[in-house]
Amino acid sequence: MSLKNVMVAQSGGPTVAINASLAGVIRGVMASDQYETVYGSVNGILGILNNHLLNLTEIMNENPAYLDRLETTPAMYLGSCRHKLPDYLDDDSSYVFIFKQFELYNVGAFFYIGGNDSMDTVLKLSEYGKKIGSDVRIIGIPKTIDNDLCETDHTPGFGSAAKYIASSVLEIAHDTFIYAVKSVTIIEIMGRDAGWLTAAAALARNGYNSAPHLIYLPEVPFDTDDFLLDVKRMLFERNNVIIAVSEGIRDASGNYISASEKSVDTFGHSQLSGAGKTLEFLVKEKLGVKVRSIEVNVLQRCAAHLASKTDLMESVELGKKAVALSEEGVTASMVTMNRVSDDPYTIEYGYAEIKNIANEAKSVPTEWINAAGNDVTQELIDYLTPLIQGESNVTYENGLPVYMDVSHLTKHQ
Amino acid sequence: MSLKNVMVAQSGGPTVAINASLAGVIRGVMASDQYETVYGSVNGILGILNNHLLNLTEIMNENPAYLDRLETTPAMYLGSCRHKLPDYLDDDSSYVFIFKQFELYNVGAFFYIGGNDSMDTVLKLSEYGKKIGSDVRIIGIPKTIDNDLCETDHTPGFGSAAKYIASSVLEIAHDTFIYAVKSVTIIEIMGRDAGWLTAAAALARNGYNSAPHLIYLPEVPFDTDDFLLDVKRMLFERNNVIIAVSEGIRDASGNYISASEKSVDTFGHSQLSGAGKTLEFLVKEKLGVKVRSIEVNVLQRCAAHLASKTDLMESVELGKKAVALSEEGVTASMVTMNRVSDDPYTIEYGYAEIKNIANEAKSVPTEWINAAGNDVTQELIDYLTPLIQGESNVTYENGLPVYMDVSHLTKHQ
Repeated sequence: MSLKNVMVAQSGGPTVAINASLAGVIRGVMASDQYETVYGSVNGILGILNNHLLNLTEIMNENPAYLDRLETTPAMYLGSCRHKLPDYLDDDSSYVFIFKQFELYNVGAFFYIGGNDSMDTVLKLSEYGKKIGSDVRIIGIPKTIDNDLCETDHTPGFGSAAKYIASSVLEIAHDTFIYAVKSVTIIEIMGRDAGWLTAAAALARNGYNSAPHLIYLPEVPFDTDDFLLDVKRMLFERNNVIIAVSEGIRDASGNYISASEKSVDTFGHSQLSGAGKTLEFLVKEKLGVKVRSIEVNVLQRCAAHLASKTDLMESVELGKKAVALSEEGVTASMVTMNRVSDDPYTIEYGYAEIKNIANEAKSVPTEWINAAGNDVTQELIDYLTPLIQGESNVTYENGLPVYMDVSHLTKHQ
Repeated sequence: MSLKNVMVAQSGGPTVAINASLAGVIRGVMASDQYETVYGSVNGILGILNNHLLNLTEIMNENPAYLDRLETTPAMYLGSCRHKLPDYLDDDSSYVFIFKQFELYNVGAFFYIGGNDSMDTVLKLSEYGKKIGSDVRIIGIPKTIDNDLCETDHTPGFGSAAKYIASSVLEIAHDTFIYAVKSVTIIEIMGRDAGWLTAAAALARNGYNSAPHLIYLPEVPFDTDDFLLDVKRMLFERNNVIIAVSEGIRDASGNYISASEKSVDTFGHSQLSGAGKTLEFLVKEKLGVKVRSIEVNVLQRCAAHLASKTDLMESVELGKKAVALSEEGVTASMVTMNRVSDDPYTIEYGYAEIKNIANEAKSVPTEWINAAGNDVTQELIDYLTPLIQGESNVTYENGLPVYMDVSHLTKHQ
């Protein structure tokens, strides 16, 4: 049997574990007796369309340190895209070209590492491949800091983001506790539709730190009056109240909690303030207490130096699993994690049909949110805790983390 | 000779190295044959006035791990204050009480770890002490992420903040490079009057990353037209332009670059946008390119998990040095670092009279800024590089950094 090659791409927003899955695919192919070379498509599916491909096997063989380094490098080594394939019934030209490329490069399997939108691409390619009778296996590998993909216990990238959020909330608590005056600190966390990452703020609690004292998820309709009562009550009990709030909180009518602001300077812009800033205004106005809001920035998805080892290891395993499944003939699927035990924390790797995943989303279940809608339950904390265990092996040189050279992303313009 | 005790307090804004200096003082006293017990004043000078004191010698002896842990704990173990002592010629009641407390606790030396304002307190206490003929030695130990104190090569806390900024800019660069479309990313960094920390963004540059492509410090008058030309030119050369900008940039008339925004929601607030947000508006308006601004939040001063080992070690040494100097009779001074060699990087610890330091500030010298005023020179990079070397020994438990229990700050209310 002659050897086939493999093609892989990455898509959607960054996480710190998406390159670990890429490394897993490469490791899987290196150990395979069915596959030879891994081609990386640069900027998602666009790399195949634009013929911007990297021979990853060759690159990784250049230096034995590269694969380990790839595992701890944030964002996408192969770049990303936001390209949505059209329905092939409307326009199949992209599909024709992609499968011609697969033929040209003797591709036996295509792996797409991404979130919801990327799984839509996996679904469409799978369906088109089936229609034309292609034997290229199409498998999705999940990643998203939002943890909102169905059919998998959790998503790669989420554990590291959760570890970053919990550590940051703890460090912000130390920063906050130093002044013996009443104050409110509002921390706005990513996750427009699912509150998983905001819930991870609860992991910051320990023997001396009870922050965050209030947690608001998008799964619960946000009531401004209830919120102000919550804050007042907390301020009665302690000096420094720390609040974790999802960027996606909405009122009972489904409107985002945000303030439209009109700039009065020469530019004359109108722009939307986020939930944190809006609640900061509200607390200042209604409670007259010292208040600040902190928008946790993009580092929550790219601070690879603080990645969760568990997350990185699982991401590598999922990459390997995808290769193994494709060898067994599995296609039109996404690799998944199934938690078979909490103690000891045990994961089984499997797969699910892509049609059950694409365009679906998983929210925090109501029973893991407290009755008042301002905190999470111990069950949710127990679910989250194993995901942040262990630290990344990132190495440092000259004081900075050493990541993979990504100049191929900035040179090809 | 009967043994005396030592009192120590912390003040001003947090850094991740201020507890390392506290640990240095405690270590210095433990090794001393002149001093016995270290008392910590909680919430700066207020702890002495309110009689909220901790026996640090006793606490540290409880667990041999505590001193190491204290060295890597962010913000202030003893809390902070923003209290400014009045001129004793106007009102000496606080001074009388403080020196009475020194007598009561048999204090031979008082150490105040802080920035500019704290050194003002050191100066005032020194002058009052001299006036009443007190033999209590008063010594300041510097700390500030702003690096703007005179008479010392650099300040404790700055190196760690610089390491955080450089690492973050590098990680944000990875996050930015993934899309093959034109974009501008503006990173706003702390430092209202001095550009040292913003300049540290330049340390993110390496073999594959040339970001930040533009750097604007408060030391250079900011010209909006020049800025737009700079950005246009950079966008011509590359897809992703990353800009580091100080929160304190001002125009030629000294006005901060900021936009006053009027909220149009029910709260009706007017509030000031920072430099980053303001430049984001400007780029969107004038260049019509995809643009985002990132305000590096308080983690730049409290992310202890990413502290610089060099910074922590120097901070400990300064604490020890302060104890040693007080034993030699030095008072009315601040401990300092003098760089005697760049290669190998060598620091000598010394001291300077407090009257030359308090209420003075050190800016980035003009010769370390390029002629166009949009970047820093290699000399500045060479100055900064040694300060971020090495990583903190912070330990992790259950996935999170282990810091000192600071419940004494939140319980005493």
